Amino acid sequence: MSNPMTNDQLTQWDHDHFFHPSTHLGQFARREIGNRIIKGAEGVHITDREGHTSLDAFAGLYCVNVGYGRTEIADAIAAQAHELAYFHSYAGHGSEASITLSRMVAERAPEGMNHVYFGMSGSDANETNIKLVWYYNNILGRPEKKKIIARWRGYHGSGLMTGSLTGLELFHNKFDLPLSQVVHTQAPYFYRRDDRSMDEAAFTADCVSKLEALIEREGADTIAAFIGEPVLGTGGIVPPPAGYWDAIQAVLKKHDILLIADEVVTGFGRLGTMMGSDHYGLKPDLITIAKGLTSAYAPLSGSIVSDRMWKVLEQGTDENGPLGHGWTYSAHPIGAAAGVANLKLLDSLNLVGNAGTVGAHLNNAMTQALGDHAHVGEIRGEGMLCAVELVKDRDDRVFFDAGDKTGPRVVAAMLDRGVIARAMPQGDTIGFAPPFCLTRDEADHVVSVTKDAIASVLG
Amino acid sequence: MSNPMTNDQLTQWDHDHFFHPSTHLGQFARREIGNRIIKGAEGVHITDREGHTSLDAFAGLYCVNVGYGRTEIADAIAAQAHELAYFHSYAGHGSEASITLSRMVAERAPEGMNHVYFGMSGSDANETNIKLVWYYNNILGRPEKKKIIARWRGYHGSGLMTGSLTGLELFHNKFDLPLSQVVHTQAPYFYRRDDRSMDEAAFTADCVSKLEALIEREGADTIAAFIGEPVLGTGGIVPPPAGYWDAIQAVLKKHDILLIADEVVTGFGRLGTMMGSDHYGLKPDLITIAKGLTSAYAPLSGSIVSDRMWKVLEQGTDENGPLGHGWTYSAHPIGAAAGVANLKLLDSLNLVGNAGTVGAHLNNAMTQALGDHAHVGEIRGEGMLCAVELVKDRDDRVFFDAGDKTGPRVVAAMLDRGVIARAMPQGDTIGFAPPFCLTRDEADHVVSVTKDAIASVLG
Repeated sequence: MSNPMTNDQLTQWDHDHFFHPSTHLGQFARREIGNRIIKGAEGVHITDREGHTSLDAFAGLYCVNVGYGRTEIADAIAAQAHELAYFHSYAGHGSEASITLSRMVAERAPEGMNHVYFGMSGSDANETNIKLVWYYNNILGRPEKKKIIARWRGYHGSGLMTGSLTGLELFHNKFDLPLSQVVHTQAPYFYRRDDRSMDEAAFTADCVSKLEALIEREGADTIAAFIGEPVLGTGGIVPPPAGYWDAIQAVLKKHDILLIADEVVTGFGRLGTMMGSDHYGLKPDLITIAKGLTSAYAPLSGSIVSDRMWKVLEQGTDENGPLGHGWTYSAHPIGAAAGVANLKLLDSLNLVGNAGTVGAHLNNAMTQALGDHAHVGEIRGEGMLCAVELVKDRDDRVFFDAGDKTGPRVVAAMLDRGVIARAMPQGDTIGFAPPFCLTRDEADHVVSVTKDAIASVLG
Repeated sequence: MSNPMTNDQLTQWDHDHFFHPSTHLGQFARREIGNRIIKGAEGVHITDREGHTSLDAFAGLYCVNVGYGRTEIADAIAAQAHELAYFHSYAGHGSEASITLSRMVAERAPEGMNHVYFGMSGSDANETNIKLVWYYNNILGRPEKKKIIARWRGYHGSGLMTGSLTGLELFHNKFDLPLSQVVHTQAPYFYRRDDRSMDEAAFTADCVSKLEALIEREGADTIAAFIGEPVLGTGGIVPPPAGYWDAIQAVLKKHDILLIADEVVTGFGRLGTMMGSDHYGLKPDLITIAKGLTSAYAPLSGSIVSDRMWKVLEQGTDENGPLGHGWTYSAHPIGAAAGVANLKLLDSLNLVGNAGTVGAHLNNAMTQALGDHAHVGEIRGEGMLCAVELVKDRDDRVFFDAGDKTGPRVVAAMLDRGVIARAMPQGDTIGFAPPFCLTRDEADHVVSVTKDAIASVLG
């Protein structure tokens, strides 16, 4: 910006004109909640225009995986912006960056997944996935096989259909979602199982049996696909119970139901493996990728398509002509350049390995510090994901009332102490998803601040 | 890219891994259609890796409005990438660029439209619009008032709901669209009117009467909004008949139906006015913006919300808490920085004025060159938009068979002569939407190449 502006002027414009996502509009307009203008960032820290710095233990929205201020990515974006900021990718057009990235993604995807359709966000990639699934079954002559099974507490986007896949009240209420093409099955959320007498194996069996009952009720010939995150993300950061994915995949295979692995959060290293599918032995037909693809340095998403589906899509265009699906900014050169630089950095700095080892340290340290706290119901995580679920009564697993805003109050107390965590939207779970470059010392600091903040709010 | 790669290697990867939008996948995989790798661009010209240069008379996908190679925008992107590539904009967070851009958009929007929700693409902005419309009527206690009226030949996106708003076969066939929440009314396409005895006024009256019949059939209390582009874009580049928008708006007002103006193509100058709404006297409740907002230098879109709707949204969050709608990349700093630099350039170079004057010259020159051609049915346009509709028989208005691929063959002949135009998808219309910096000489060259190409294909 050439003309430095006062914060007052920006704050006025902010309240007058900027429609922020996921915000209480009334309170923001009345300035009952303030704004925060972020100015710069480096490593795991962000700094605002008032000069306050915070350790961002949620990596933006679990997306700045390689950390902030990476000159290598900024330089790649700058070079691309000067060389060729934009040309479309329709009808066989591309750029060196977008083609190179398609190759790099295929190399990192599970075996037999070799085709990448690029978009801008995880939401639009899931739109693409549903369109491809419907097209696929139309080409195969199964026009009735169209419903999508998602899970309660899954997060798959904020659009009309993708918000329907999402299984969280906040994204449904007052928006008339979910739409009728989506049906939901039980969340694989062991800690919140209805019957606490179940062990993990019994709960996995219960998830399978509820899925089978749903398929039987709807009819397998009406169900096209099942979508799931390897680890539930916005729904509470919940790794699946033991044996879950093997058992679910067996059911899907039996009924010829496609598997869409939504790896927007887990893709490119967050679980300490390149893909979450590697971690849990998933063999998906489609994989959704976004955040970690560019570490959020530029908007870019993708749908990775299996060779098996691809053959049917080819047949479809032979029968019907070009596929009528495109975003103006599909494979945008700036995003593609950011993606190439980001994936190179992930490799050269061994950040996937670091996500695994420092993530394990974070989870262990959190468990040691808070595992016995009277208001901590569960500490769970996988790779560089960690969650602390707060409860009113630990022994009887009594949850707080939503109106108490326990999670948000703890997160606010953490922010006062210089650490950003996220109050997950349904329940009182404090979520952690730091950049992969987090050090052990920084992890220890996050744990210590979490402990202090919980003590300040809950004793 | 640090390692120069051979075109052969890139081409191999391209065919193996890159799922291009709107492409015939079978032909591409078998290399029956080739690829084109774009390397650089300047002004109205793009250059590929083989060294071939083309004059891009469609500005990418009518989006590179200020022209290619603008150092001012590339510098702004580079500076932002180094200062702060990303932070989210949820819950009152922002950056200097995103707040400044929200102000600049409000200043350029019609009176009483002061709130901007940023996304990445026109498609996601229309998703946002429908969510806001549904939420609005839920807050007002009108849960049945939800259907959206769109027009046949409208283009509003490529997602499941937005592709349903779109009224083109290519985007519906084999995708099970449109979804049931969308109903379509007649396209305001005078040249293709069913009854050729109608003059423009009679045809406008016919459009109004068909809209009124649709509203009566569905029930006004079930219809929430009407969406339309000021000038039909992908549906054939069709300005409305005289009096159309005034008459349509009167009907909408009578039935308390919101108006969504989709200005993805027309916003920020393409018609020679800042917004298409200014040009036609539209008073929308929501405006969709995308392409011209950044001239495609980075993905960014927006929904501009009227003060009247905003009040109800505020009431909604007072009653229900934060609005459950957000994209990770809402108001992405890179896009915002590109937008600020782009809108400044639009002003400082008087590019909106140029779009009006050179656009008029282009349309006049095209009419002089081809207006009497036996296979040219109509030449139409507005501002820097122009269309040449090809017909088998001009006097009896007989269209070519789609299988003849007349439009695509003319466009291919133009490309051979170094000019990019677009064969619009439904019919045989050659579309022109050049960057606003097009000169009169360049416009004359485009006309001359169009004439030659038509002669080479059709005589």
